[in-house]
Amino acid sequence: MSKTKASIPAGFLELLPGEQIEFNRMLDAIRRVFELFGFAPIETPAIEYASVLLAKGGGETEKQVYRFERGDKEYCLHFDLTIPLARYVAMHYHDLSFPFRRYQIQKVWRAERPQRGRFREFYQCDIDIVGDDNMLADAEMLLVTNTVFMALGFERFTIRVNNRKVLNGFIEHLGYNELSEQILRSLDKFEKLGEDAVTRELTALGLSADVVKSLFDFIRITGSQEEVVGQLERLEIGNPVFVQGLSELKELLVGVKQLGLSEERYKIDLSIARGLDYYTSTVYETTLDEYPEIGSVCSGGRYDDLTSLYGEVRLPGVGISIGLTRFFDQLRSAGLLNTDRATTAKVLIVPIDPDHLGEALNIASRFRGRGIPTEVRTKQANLGAQLKYAHKQNFPFVAIVGMDEAKDGEITLKDMSTSVQSVLDIIAACDQVGAAD
Amino acid sequence: MSKTKASIPAGFLELLPGEQIEFNRMLDAIRRVFELFGFAPIETPAIEYASVLLAKGGGETEKQVYRFERGDKEYCLHFDLTIPLARYVAMHYHDLSFPFRRYQIQKVWRAERPQRGRFREFYQCDIDIVGDDNMLADAEMLLVTNTVFMALGFERFTIRVNNRKVLNGFIEHLGYNELSEQILRSLDKFEKLGEDAVTRELTALGLSADVVKSLFDFIRITGSQEEVVGQLERLEIGNPVFVQGLSELKELLVGVKQLGLSEERYKIDLSIARGLDYYTSTVYETTLDEYPEIGSVCSGGRYDDLTSLYGEVRLPGVGISIGLTRFFDQLRSAGLLNTDRATTAKVLIVPIDPDHLGEALNIASRFRGRGIPTEVRTKQANLGAQLKYAHKQNFPFVAIVGMDEAKDGEITLKDMSTSVQSVLDIIAACDQVGAAD
Repeated sequence: MSKTKASIPAGFLELLPGEQIEFNRMLDAIRRVFELFGFAPIETPAIEYASVLLAKGGGETEKQVYRFERGDKEYCLHFDLTIPLARYVAMHYHDLSFPFRRYQIQKVWRAERPQRGRFREFYQCDIDIVGDDNMLADAEMLLVTNTVFMALGFERFTIRVNNRKVLNGFIEHLGYNELSEQILRSLDKFEKLGEDAVTRELTALGLSADVVKSLFDFIRITGSQEEVVGQLERLEIGNPVFVQGLSELKELLVGVKQLGLSEERYKIDLSIARGLDYYTSTVYETTLDEYPEIGSVCSGGRYDDLTSLYGEVRLPGVGISIGLTRFFDQLRSAGLLNTDRATTAKVLIVPIDPDHLGEALNIASRFRGRGIPTEVRTKQANLGAQLKYAHKQNFPFVAIVGMDEAKDGEITLKDMSTSVQSVLDIIAACDQVGAAD
Repeated sequence: MSKTKASIPAGFLELLPGEQIEFNRMLDAIRRVFELFGFAPIETPAIEYASVLLAKGGGETEKQVYRFERGDKEYCLHFDLTIPLARYVAMHYHDLSFPFRRYQIQKVWRAERPQRGRFREFYQCDIDIVGDDNMLADAEMLLVTNTVFMALGFERFTIRVNNRKVLNGFIEHLGYNELSEQILRSLDKFEKLGEDAVTRELTALGLSADVVKSLFDFIRITGSQEEVVGQLERLEIGNPVFVQGLSELKELLVGVKQLGLSEERYKIDLSIARGLDYYTSTVYETTLDEYPEIGSVCSGGRYDDLTSLYGEVRLPGVGISIGLTRFFDQLRSAGLLNTDRATTAKVLIVPIDPDHLGEALNIASRFRGRGIPTEVRTKQANLGAQLKYAHKQNFPFVAIVGMDEAKDGEITLKDMSTSVQSVLDIIAACDQVGAAD
């Protein structure tokens, strides 16, 4: 029998066992953080109907899709996890609870031209909160991003955040509504290509030197979160899209403060547009301070409408995605591989009313700080509805924050399996939840 | 925009979040046991060259392979994890240590006709020890299988073991060498189809009623391990294949005893042939005592030659595989879902000479019993070579069993990071290894 040469196609990352252990450690760390925050796993088939996944169309991506026919059907390999999520949510709508907090860690495939740092098969690690238009969900994305990169062993990174409406509103305010998409796409390349190249692109679109300068001045607004907001307010722009975007951005910042994320960890970057994505509001990118050349290691944003393509339901949501394969490859090249450990999701923190939300988030941090996976119920409802939700989701414990019986620093912990409620301080509560392993 | 119906192709299992959590728990439990036993992870691309994965040919499987062309190449989705392992080992031969203990948990795809319990996409959870012809490796497969099913929460299951050479040798002894494969395939269906159907098949092959009776009498030999071996010996068959098979089977049983596996957990079943697989010696099947209708939940065996198709090297090995998707689906239907927890691999037990191997295995059980992932170095070599192996594999600790300095019940524990050696009893050793997390 003639010998066959053992080889694999270009663009596929295959690791030796020691590397794979490191890779899995990172994957586990990401997954553990996702679970720590109460996201539930789902997995979707690698193979789907081409007619379903490509329903939205989309030139660039479509060319890179692995497609094949069998019988009279055309199939394709999924090329991201967001379109499958949309299909999943539409398909299982009546079996899900909303807001639907899901994580999904799977390989996806794109037949890209193989080159350094580009892979045809790569892991995406995604979380989304679907069916929630509260900016606190957007704020939580920053906290999750922060916790993930801490867990991965990084100390110095920056989560850059923007709101597309701010930039879109400003472009509308300048009178270039119709070119909005193309302008966003050019501005998105500002950091990568530099001022000259982007100037040429914008000029080619017909923008005057003054308008280009206005755009550049705008995206270069920097400073602390408050300073940037202050500068945006002082522009006194009345465009309703801008006004709404600025208001959402401010709401987001309030949420992030509530969540206790250090101000060093995030900044407003008005140049971030993520032009090719379907985001309509908040957008994120995360970069490692010491390795800016790696580019964004975690990106995402908020979308108005995830699911209406597949049915009557129209759900907003917010999510982030880590492309681990590329990131791993770059860390490996740079000789940096590290990780950390944690545990799985057990308690729902329910603030009794909106006034106790801040305290609930604080307590969640302490639970999480003691390694107990925790979700905060940010959606307001009466206690019965919250417990019903907790029951449906099968939380072992519910920690109710702000009941009359509880003194300052105490919570009401309900063991959902026995229905026994106890008023406890946080440490005792942590012990009880922790002891239930 | 017209709506697209959200649907997935038949034969793909998509779970709701609560189910997915259970599924992942099982996957994690299996993975944890694999790591407890010191198997290292690898992952291979889902897409490979069709010319490479289908190099061996093979009619049945080939029809079920998802294939597609792009450019001038033909690709396919992997349909098992054993052929990719062979390709991986051949390709990375010089970067691996042998025996190569790997686990691999990935989805595979087969375009089977969808029907209940058959999936087109399913998880395989595989371990193999490659480059080891010691029957203790085969025995270890039983212990791993046992530990996996215990970890999955099962108390009553039976690992059925056979050696294909015993059955093949018996068929040769009867004078039916040429029909050996077909006979094995028929006998494999004995339990499923029953005596009458198999009799018809064998008769159609030209076997006389006497020969069929001999075969049936043979595969019906039952009793304790010793009784079965005794009966096989009393047949006084001189056929060299039979003799070798019986000898291997006896060696395997000695190994399993050394590993301390309860005799209740396994039995010799001379009817197991696994006719369609490439096994050449030991074969396994595992069934749940209370749910025989589920069929084998873990199968495997020993092969003479994994890699020579892809190069000059010819490596024997032994492995087992759990098809988790089908198993999960069946457990779900039966309302049975459970799991357990453990930690990751940290100590290599090195017996100083072959006389201390039994003790080493015993100690490994105690380490494992205390939750410390442990590998036993069953390959004999001088201590320097063992430590070099330990270094190369990056074991944090080596426990040397049988050094003069150690009293009965003590071991020499070497912290590989500091090179400090201490003589400790097992409990103290466990504490030290455990405390190093």
